[in-house]
Amino acid sequence: MNIGIVGLGLIGGSLGLDLLASSPDRNYVWGISRNINTCKQAEAIAAVNIASTDIAEIPDQVIEQTDIVVVCTPIATIVPTIRSLAPKLPANVIFTDVGSVKSAIVKPAAEICQQFGQIFIGSHPMAGTAFQGILAAERNLFQNRPCVVVPDADPVAVAKVRSLWQSVGMNIYECSPEEHDQAVAMISHAPVMISASLIAACGQQRDFKVLQLAQNLASSGFRDTSRVGGGNPELGRLMAEYNQKALLGSLQAYQKSLQQVIALIETEQWQELETFLATTQRDREIYMS
Amino acid sequence: MNIGIVGLGLIGGSLGLDLLASSPDRNYVWGISRNINTCKQAEAIAAVNIASTDIAEIPDQVIEQTDIVVVCTPIATIVPTIRSLAPKLPANVIFTDVGSVKSAIVKPAAEICQQFGQIFIGSHPMAGTAFQGILAAERNLFQNRPCVVVPDADPVAVAKVRSLWQSVGMNIYECSPEEHDQAVAMISHAPVMISASLIAACGQQRDFKVLQLAQNLASSGFRDTSRVGGGNPELGRLMAEYNQKALLGSLQAYQKSLQQVIALIETEQWQELETFLATTQRDREIYMS
Repeated sequence: MNIGIVGLGLIGGSLGLDLLASSPDRNYVWGISRNINTCKQAEAIAAVNIASTDIAEIPDQVIEQTDIVVVCTPIATIVPTIRSLAPKLPANVIFTDVGSVKSAIVKPAAEICQQFGQIFIGSHPMAGTAFQGILAAERNLFQNRPCVVVPDADPVAVAKVRSLWQSVGMNIYECSPEEHDQAVAMISHAPVMISASLIAACGQQRDFKVLQLAQNLASSGFRDTSRVGGGNPELGRLMAEYNQKALLGSLQAYQKSLQQVIALIETEQWQELETFLATTQRDREIYMS
Repeated sequence: MNIGIVGLGLIGGSLGLDLLASSPDRNYVWGISRNINTCKQAEAIAAVNIASTDIAEIPDQVIEQTDIVVVCTPIATIVPTIRSLAPKLPANVIFTDVGSVKSAIVKPAAEICQQFGQIFIGSHPMAGTAFQGILAAERNLFQNRPCVVVPDADPVAVAKVRSLWQSVGMNIYECSPEEHDQAVAMISHAPVMISASLIAACGQQRDFKVLQLAQNLASSGFRDTSRVGGGNPELGRLMAEYNQKALLGSLQAYQKSLQQVIALIETEQWQELETFLATTQRDREIYMS
């Protein structure tokens, strides 16, 4: 199978590594990056067979036999990338992506692909590390991790995209773009804002001695609760920008739960608070199993 | 030095282990637990020289030469424990504790001690593991961890309590009960409620498919942000009950920060949101260093 990977960062690079390492005879992987050094590095670590900053430099017969193109760029450039590449790729090619939002991408991407007789199937492989870039790429990054694939009127195309992610070890979940966005808003995007707000609240402390003490006493509880709020600000902004509606829904549900806890504490309903915390203790197990 | 440890759980047991292992010739440690099996286990692992469920069974000459009694029971029983033990201990003995709140403990405990010519110095050694009980006790639990000691009119007693914690490797911070309670409310008690509210908000999801999807997709971001909200419900309740005022103050500051984030998302102020997240990213480093 000929596979194109556009965007050779952690995700694109790791995907290429696994595709080539597991089936070097069956897969041929070409890559595109804006950066020529990234292209050279991707070739050097065998994440791709060939890479270029310009699709025109990928041999015609490679392009003509391409089955799937995986767009691994940041969210904001997924649709523009498809718009620019679609005219240069054969009809029947399947595009997919790795974006952490789906509603904002699937419809416009599918419309572009349709114009060229191509198909877009939305994906969201949920894998990563704390690092970025082609040099952070690693084998087995996707192993046993969940991947959302958005169903489509073309079941053959969906099956091919499912197979691609399954071939690197992922567990597939099918759902609509809206279902995906609501689920990730709650378990991934809202936690970033909830966690960042904790850090910001500490910053409101005007008593310098208390602030300094808090900084000295902060330990694992604060470290874990604040971790994702201390992450990449650009990524946090993009989540909010491209998943605004579902994120706001999750944050409003969160405000309601928080207000409930505060009311229990204000009215000294200690037994009810303990029951509330026993429920969250039990419920968390379901997410962690 | 003769040291009494009342409450032989993770903290009391680990303290005894270190005191006896580092200076077996200089320290003599006696222990009290409500549970006779715990007493036997504490003796067996050398967390104490002698332990009993009844202080009357500790030899008189050991009690008479006791310098410090460390109350390692749960918050709610610290003051009652001191009330019951103080009449049975010599004048001049120093009581200290390990409670995670200080305002609710220091004043009543000091008043009891004063009646018997004894002194109470509040402590909060910030150390622990995910486990409980004497069998979870371990060497070097306190090494390089922070410990708050509340200053008192008797500097010699304060120095003795500081030395005790320093002898097991702790870094000492002195502050008032109110300063302590405000600082731990923000970095330890509020995170429990903030984190639990995230789990509770997920539970509001009425679309079963989305809920199931969220459970399947939850990964490290959700795991870390929800960790302390999935902890011991009784401990969470006690934090709130005994540190109500400071906790409510922290949660109100938190609500303000959260509302600020939500407003930025509602009004699509994406650049401002990114700036907010860049600030929290930078500020978190101060707490983690």
